[in-house]
Amino acid sequence: MSEPIHFYFDFISPYAYLAWTQVGPLAERAHRPVEPIPVLFAGLLDALGALGPAEVPARRRYVMKDAARKASALSVPINVPFAHPFNPLLALRTCSMAPLADRGRLVSAVFHATWVDGQDVTDKAVMRGIVSSSGLDPELVARADAPDAKALVRRQTEEAIAQGAFGVPTMVVGGELFWGTDSLPCLERFLERGDIVSPAMIARWEALPSAAVRPGSRRSNRP
Amino acid sequence: MSEPIHFYFDFISPYAYLAWTQVGPLAERAHRPVEPIPVLFAGLLDALGALGPAEVPARRRYVMKDAARKASALSVPINVPFAHPFNPLLALRTCSMAPLADRGRLVSAVFHATWVDGQDVTDKAVMRGIVSSSGLDPELVARADAPDAKALVRRQTEEAIAQGAFGVPTMVVGGELFWGTDSLPCLERFLERGDIVSPAMIARWEALPSAAVRPGSRRSNRP
Repeated sequence: MSEPIHFYFDFISPYAYLAWTQVGPLAERAHRPVEPIPVLFAGLLDALGALGPAEVPARRRYVMKDAARKASALSVPINVPFAHPFNPLLALRTCSMAPLADRGRLVSAVFHATWVDGQDVTDKAVMRGIVSSSGLDPELVARADAPDAKALVRRQTEEAIAQGAFGVPTMVVGGELFWGTDSLPCLERFLERGDIVSPAMIARWEALPSAAVRPGSRRSNRP
Repeated sequence: MSEPIHFYFDFISPYAYLAWTQVGPLAERAHRPVEPIPVLFAGLLDALGALGPAEVPARRRYVMKDAARKASALSVPINVPFAHPFNPLLALRTCSMAPLADRGRLVSAVFHATWVDGQDVTDKAVMRGIVSSSGLDPELVARADAPDAKALVRRQTEEAIAQGAFGVPTMVVGGELFWGTDSLPCLERFLERGDIVSPAMIARWEALPSAAVRPGSRRSNRP
């Protein structure tokens, strides 16, 4: 089997939901498996000292409109979730404990519960229902409380950061990173024809002089 | 003439360049004029307390690759600029002082000089050359130093913020905001068919309870 597409995601993100609905068919066309890897988006932002889209008020207003417009363009249903932001850890840990063979099915069910049905996926009874409906053992939800489940999501988040991820969803394949729903066409072209970006161009970009620095911009936003 | 598409942009952004190459043909198809409005992206970020894409190191690495991939998909040329970030104020002020009828032509020339030819648009002689080649009076560059030019870019940036902009490029039409190259298809559908987003959905989103707040996330990243 060829190298999988690693799909780093958090249920908090409507863009991760939209990308998840598309990456399966894309991977099938490219004859590759997809491996969904739950990560804590807040942990990623903490590590980068950055703000999430829903943390900048002007941007928060836009996010749901933009996600709804893109969902409509993709003919994918989307609704306002039960709360936002919400704590996604129970859902992330539960999915991380699911065997890889079943994980995609469970991830689809949790995304649908969150972004279509408006269910409270921070609630253990709700999560048990979703796990059962996906044909998996609801005991998985109890196991999400165990130290190994917590460590797993932490490790996956660190792995995403080490790969260079700065947001969700991030798709990684062949050492290349593709961020967001909007990068799916780029990912598909990459899988079909290889990268159009020359290493020389990126080397020049990395070596560019900075001719201006915004006052305070190099400071972390954390104390 | 129907209401123009307001195109808020800064030359610092490769995505603003890409969107600028597309918004003209899009506006023509929609029988609308485009009004390019130079704004200082750094001023916008300061107002929001947010970091720009090139200020998060992992994201900076990605930005040029992503822009190059999207340029290739659009069959638009793109190259590494002379420096990045650079101070765009001279270019922004010069373009702001150009009469509206000529402004689009000059904006195209400055974008091309920056993102295709790698010219140093912070240099007055370079800018005079670009202005002349665009058939405009090179005196425009000297006028960019005047207090009214400075006030104009400041006012335009404040206007963008007041409209709800949080990044560049931002296209505004009919009170609706579209952010980034990736939102151009949404803008085009909006102009053709109106908005698919129901006001009720957005009202629900705005009224959502927050079930989780990241520690420190409500703090500004400015001291």
